[in-house]
Amino acid sequence: MTDLNSKLPKVMDGFMNELSDLVSIPSVSSDPDYEESIHKCAEILKGKLENMGAKTRLIQTSGYPLVVGNISNKKAVKTIAIYNHYDVQPIASPDEWKSAPFELAQDGDKWYARGASDDKGNLLVVLKAVKLAIRENLPINFQFIYEGEEEKGSPNFVEGLKKAKQYLNPDIVIVADGGWISRNQPTIEYGLRGLLYMHWNLKTARKNAHSGSVGGAARNPILEVAEACSRCIDAKTGKIKIPGVYDDVRKLKPGELESWMESGFEVDQFMQKHGLHSLRSNRLEEVLKAIWARPTFEAHGLVGGYMKKDGRMTVLPKETQLLVSMRLVADQDPDKIFELVKRHLEKINPDIEVVKVSAAKPYLGKFDSPNLQAASRALNETFGLPVAKIRAGGSIGAVPTMYDILGQPEILLMAFGLPEHGAHGPNEYFDHKMAQGGIKAYFKYFETIVNL
Amino acid sequence: MTDLNSKLPKVMDGFMNELSDLVSIPSVSSDPDYEESIHKCAEILKGKLENMGAKTRLIQTSGYPLVVGNISNKKAVKTIAIYNHYDVQPIASPDEWKSAPFELAQDGDKWYARGASDDKGNLLVVLKAVKLAIRENLPINFQFIYEGEEEKGSPNFVEGLKKAKQYLNPDIVIVADGGWISRNQPTIEYGLRGLLYMHWNLKTARKNAHSGSVGGAARNPILEVAEACSRCIDAKTGKIKIPGVYDDVRKLKPGELESWMESGFEVDQFMQKHGLHSLRSNRLEEVLKAIWARPTFEAHGLVGGYMKKDGRMTVLPKETQLLVSMRLVADQDPDKIFELVKRHLEKINPDIEVVKVSAAKPYLGKFDSPNLQAASRALNETFGLPVAKIRAGGSIGAVPTMYDILGQPEILLMAFGLPEHGAHGPNEYFDHKMAQGGIKAYFKYFETIVNL
Repeated sequence: MTDLNSKLPKVMDGFMNELSDLVSIPSVSSDPDYEESIHKCAEILKGKLENMGAKTRLIQTSGYPLVVGNISNKKAVKTIAIYNHYDVQPIASPDEWKSAPFELAQDGDKWYARGASDDKGNLLVVLKAVKLAIRENLPINFQFIYEGEEEKGSPNFVEGLKKAKQYLNPDIVIVADGGWISRNQPTIEYGLRGLLYMHWNLKTARKNAHSGSVGGAARNPILEVAEACSRCIDAKTGKIKIPGVYDDVRKLKPGELESWMESGFEVDQFMQKHGLHSLRSNRLEEVLKAIWARPTFEAHGLVGGYMKKDGRMTVLPKETQLLVSMRLVADQDPDKIFELVKRHLEKINPDIEVVKVSAAKPYLGKFDSPNLQAASRALNETFGLPVAKIRAGGSIGAVPTMYDILGQPEILLMAFGLPEHGAHGPNEYFDHKMAQGGIKAYFKYFETIVNL
Repeated sequence: MTDLNSKLPKVMDGFMNELSDLVSIPSVSSDPDYEESIHKCAEILKGKLENMGAKTRLIQTSGYPLVVGNISNKKAVKTIAIYNHYDVQPIASPDEWKSAPFELAQDGDKWYARGASDDKGNLLVVLKAVKLAIRENLPINFQFIYEGEEEKGSPNFVEGLKKAKQYLNPDIVIVADGGWISRNQPTIEYGLRGLLYMHWNLKTARKNAHSGSVGGAARNPILEVAEACSRCIDAKTGKIKIPGVYDDVRKLKPGELESWMESGFEVDQFMQKHGLHSLRSNRLEEVLKAIWARPTFEAHGLVGGYMKKDGRMTVLPKETQLLVSMRLVADQDPDKIFELVKRHLEKINPDIEVVKVSAAKPYLGKFDSPNLQAASRALNETFGLPVAKIRAGGSIGAVPTMYDILGQPEILLMAFGLPEHGAHGPNEYFDHKMAQGGIKAYFKYFETIVNL
């Protein structure tokens, strides 16, 4: 095993400057004003990879390009692709930032800037580990997939990846985005939920009416949608009532639930962190299954009628739209689930139009694979903490896309953001400890993986 | 009987000028910018009444004053109070007005201006009829109640009327506000629905959360409120499921439904006029009962989460507020109904906080009283059309207030607005035919009523 401790200080030396360069480019993908910056960021990353000896390509899409890179090793026994995204979230509330969002501000061991953690910090961490691996001549081919539209829902990732496919053949993909449950819980995620986003539209009149004049005789689209909603889910328990919806849900593997129960997840902490006053169930096992292993049905908002808080208007709305989503788990297929929802609503209220807005498949890797164990060991040895091997409740569309298009490589979700880094919020930061530990852990993992 | 035809031209002579004076005062009660104008309007009306020989008083309230007037007749056999309001709706969309809203614009027999119909036109019509009655020395005491806050929900009418009560002792109150179902259907309304307006608040978290991170375990307040809603009403039929809610609903009188069926109400026209694509039931009898004789339960809007049409956000809202109202019919008491709703929700979902926003009692007069028949005959003789004697589905809080505070006088809702006059909308107007006919009809009614 390489003696990392002597090499790390040198690696970390340039880290802050490189991060500073990256975050100074406001690569906000959801705002067309930043178009130039995003292209610039792609170019800079392309250059960075070339400096490391990579063959690189900008893969054009209908949106922003993918940056793809290959660093080959003649003795390679494994090919690892690294996924990052180079775009960032917009600045929603500039007033809440204590420093300029697009200038790195150092405060002790913290580096503040938009993208410092999500995902430019993570990108640099794994890139430094790769640099070390190359210097140590580990027998690994490295490939890179840098996306420029992750923060706007990866609308063109499938298109880009299909074009890039010819340059990519990974055994393993590391998704170096996201991070740990908490500072004391190094985390590896091996599963993600899918997402089916829908609009339910119901129009019952040409114009808004007065509930005095027509109320009783006229239909009320809000009431009808509320009723339809209540026939799709038991709001108290979260049990979905749409026939067939649980048919394809994959059962937990033996030991899987036990692994979660031992992950250090605590119900009280979970409630505290997310500000939840109460839960559908407070039993640890139920909570874990509910967020990681079961589909959900959520209403996110209802448009129509009068929408001012503490308002008093007796309008009878002509139409309404419910924003609805379902998180899906392996092996639920979003298209099939959408058909089930449609069929169910056709029975309940055929006037409700159900529109599919977006869909992402769930992803589920093997929770006890040798690869996952190697990553877990690397994290544990680096940080001296027990490692949580869990699924995630969220959805990253790029993950099932890579799994499908790149020939079902094993996908490892391993990154070094922390909840307190505040990704997406004001005063996002990254820190020295996570950066240095991250480089070390990735490198240890690379060392182990060549011998598997 | 007085030969009206010779006297009317002279009465109508000054009508347009007086209406022009009144509408030139922008007495918008809901906008504090117009405070001065409202007070000015009250003063002008006070002067108008004094010129007719009335004793007048401005009754101060926490809001705008009531103008109260008394014209006594030594031989009086009846005391009739006239209710109008001198405030008007704001100008929501100035661009849609073809002329300046606060300047009378004449086009043929039409007079355009905000308030031309609602309620300054109606106010002048009945005032002219009273003037004629005085000139003809009809043995009637006339009393006047002019409200300045009708268009903002009469928040201080109870307070004002309690103070004014000592000057008022009507046998009959004419509410000269509103009008006919259509130009071919002279209309008298003898009943109004009440209104109970509520906010249903449910807060389940301290902050909004991400449905990926917590979805399944966390409660969703929108889903819970939707479920509670669907347990209060069958959205398809309109049947309210809250126990006890129908207990106090007064049965229809013999002949009452028949009177409605003969009122000229047509389901197709009703749908067309209000732009309704479909109804809960298309049977005439069902429609009439639904809008005039039965309570309703309506959701007017839902606040919370993401409320942008065609949006795509997976927020799990921390809280929600449903704007809910119920129209009530005689003899439902809003306070009692509110308690029933609260009790029902406590069983279904005790975390939902139910707030009473406002309440108005229903009003129901006698549909076949001699007084009503007299008014009906006057309308029929004036316009040569069959008269609809109906209830109204809307609510005018001032009506049950006057009924209760003024010693249960008979209340007659008789006025001369038409749907096409477009009260509350842009290009509101009043017309010569309705003004002249209205004066005639009121006068005929006065003549008849003294002999009852």
